[in-house]
Amino acid sequence: MSFPVAIPSKEKHFMTLHKEGGLYILHMHNADNRFNSEFVAALNQALSIVEGEYNSAEELQATALVTIGNDKIYSNGLDLMHAFANPAFMDGYLALLRRLLTFCIPTVAALNGHAFAGGCMMAFAHDYRVMRSDRGYICMNEVDLPAPLAPGMAAILREKMTPHVYRDMILQGHRFTAKEALETHLVDEIAEADKVLPAAKALALKWAPKAKAGIVYKQLKDEMFTNVVAKLSIPYHRLAPRM
Amino acid sequence: MSFPVAIPSKEKHFMTLHKEGGLYILHMHNADNRFNSEFVAALNQALSIVEGEYNSAEELQATALVTIGNDKIYSNGLDLMHAFANPAFMDGYLALLRRLLTFCIPTVAALNGHAFAGGCMMAFAHDYRVMRSDRGYICMNEVDLPAPLAPGMAAILREKMTPHVYRDMILQGHRFTAKEALETHLVDEIAEADKVLPAAKALALKWAPKAKAGIVYKQLKDEMFTNVVAKLSIPYHRLAPRM
Amino acid sequence: MSFPVAIPSKEKHFMTLHKEGGLYILHMHNADNRFNSEFVAALNQALSIVEGEYNSAEELQATALVTIGNDKIYSNGLDLMHAFANPAFMDGYLALLRRLLTFCIPTVAALNGHAFAGGCMMAFAHDYRVMRSDRGYICMNEVDLPAPLAPGMAAILREKMTPHVYRDMILQGHRFTAKEALETHLVDEIAEADKVLPAAKALALKWAPKAKAGIVYKQLKDEMFTNVVAKLSIPYHRLAPRM
Repeated sequence: MSFPVAIPSKEKHFMTLHKEGGLYILHMHNADNRFNSEFVAALNQALSIVEGEYNSAEELQATALVTIGNDKIYSNGLDLMHAFANPAFMDGYLALLRRLLTFCIPTVAALNGHAFAGGCMMAFAHDYRVMRSDRGYICMNEVDLPAPLAPGMAAILREKMTPHVYRDMILQGHRFTAKEALETHLVDEIAEADKVLPAAKALALKWAPKAKAGIVYKQLKDEMFTNVVAKLSIPYHRLAPRM
Repeated sequence: MSFPVAIPSKEKHFMTLHKEGGLYILHMHNADNRFNSEFVAALNQALSIVEGEYNSAEELQATALVTIGNDKIYSNGLDLMHAFANPAFMDGYLALLRRLLTFCIPTVAALNGHAFAGGCMMAFAHDYRVMRSDRGYICMNEVDLPAPLAPGMAAILREKMTPHVYRDMILQGHRFTAKEALETHLVDEIAEADKVLPAAKALALKWAPKAKAGIVYKQLKDEMFTNVVAKLSIPYHRLAPRM
Repeated sequence: MSFPVAIPSKEKHFMTLHKEGGLYILHMHNADNRFNSEFVAALNQALSIVEGEYNSAEELQATALVTIGNDKIYSNGLDLMHAFANPAFMDGYLALLRRLLTFCIPTVAALNGHAFAGGCMMAFAHDYRVMRSDRGYICMNEVDLPAPLAPGMAAILREKMTPHVYRDMILQGHRFTAKEALETHLVDEIAEADKVLPAAKALALKWAPKAKAGIVYKQLKDEMFTNVVAKLSIPYHRLAPRM
């Protein structure tokens, strides 16, 4: 396969998958990167390319995946109108989170800007996070929308942060700055705007050799997150918020 | 309804429910506020009044609940003699914890003094805690009684604190001072004796607007605490401690 | 019974169980203390002696157990060749972890040196840990072997450390020094090489009185760790790592 790959297709693409040695960099550039069925399908397409290359190599290689957003936004979350109109959408979105949470190689989210709600969930489905230091928030704003989560979504957050941070994240809809996110271990590093991608790549390169564990790297994540995986596998029945 | 409300009745009351704008303040003043069936029923009565007013308002209002104890005691826990003599008591107590843990509006426990055992559990079933700084302990003293917990009670603690604090709380029966409780994020604020209620009210007012999320505020707590809710719903069969 | 006890027998022994007042000290001195079926049986034998003495005392006594390894090694983990050749081994090992995790009295691991993989798991199955300060690592190196864990093994770690430490432990195979282990609350104390056992004994003596809770001390651990116990009870079917 020749890189970069335009996803879903050359004619109409809103993601680009680059390859630099053992590093895959997925650039999501669909304005504010809202999740709808097409966007989820494109992410699955990208993950399948990476997975296919990794699995078909003759020998296990140091490999890692970096995802990054666009301009001031990593992802602004779900396209709620689309979600309401397409009852099957949520199950596809939850399956994507499950796939990413237990992906076969190390994963790093390069948070170039806001990661809100569904976009915040995606960030926490990665193994590591690097965040832009001068602006941008990590935020679950469901309580302010208002919109419910799903037990599987809450479970990812619960397994990635300490209890009082979990409470602030969900019940306050607190907007975590980079500084706060670093102090509470929500992210692993912070960097100036133009240093976010380089820092994320450096971190990804550091942990890429763990992909040489082969299927074991994925198995370890499956075992670490059995409870979350089980909850993400519950079919979603959207509860009508009282408005 | 005209406030304050004497609970359970004017003739015999050991709680008083005040209303100040969108704020409900439940003052528990039954000496050391031991939980027996009557006390649990009174708490349910108070919660039902708040819930009823909140749900029947024409428009969703900023609303929050503060609970506070009496003199030097928030609550000293279960009335164990009553619990032994009334096998149905524990299920009612666990149901109360479940109801409070997932209550429809923001909740703040104003720890004016000791919160021991069952009273400590009640404090952690709130969203937030403010603690008196000069005296009073947060303590699960079951290991010293000795008395077992229930999986649902342990689960509330597990979901509200970090692992080593959870261990110290249950296996050591450690008496957390206000300073320790603040450092380990067991409480959100500490204040001098006469500032505990004002600080708790200020915190409740700060988060009261989140009640405008309507049913979603409760849903988020249901989703955050699915594991705890499931365990709190297991019928309790008291295990005879070896003494 | 007269102490010290050579385990499994005077003729061939690789553990020695000492008794000093209410304190039991189990010295494991089988070179690097690798877990095979014989080693697991010997540990069970030691636990049964302690449990038997504790349960048969006329009155409940202050009692605690300290385990310590040999030279520069606490335990280097499973004997993998043995594990592969003996499919029943893993279930016995998981049952041992479950027994230790919920043991009837306070337990302290005196980490005189390396605690790797299965040996690291054993350390975290204790209530408390004291670690040698000048050398030795706590490390789950499964990702580098590579070898999968089991959901029950991952669950012990999850319940004993904060989320980002859990991630570093399993996905990085990070070698925690004593200083790092203390800062992240993986251990309770650190001490110079010749002070590790004295410090562990002092800590064990401090908490030994909690054993006077009788069956309640074990019940509290059962209730604290219901999820882990359930996962440790799942029969293990070893997944073939891709190599």
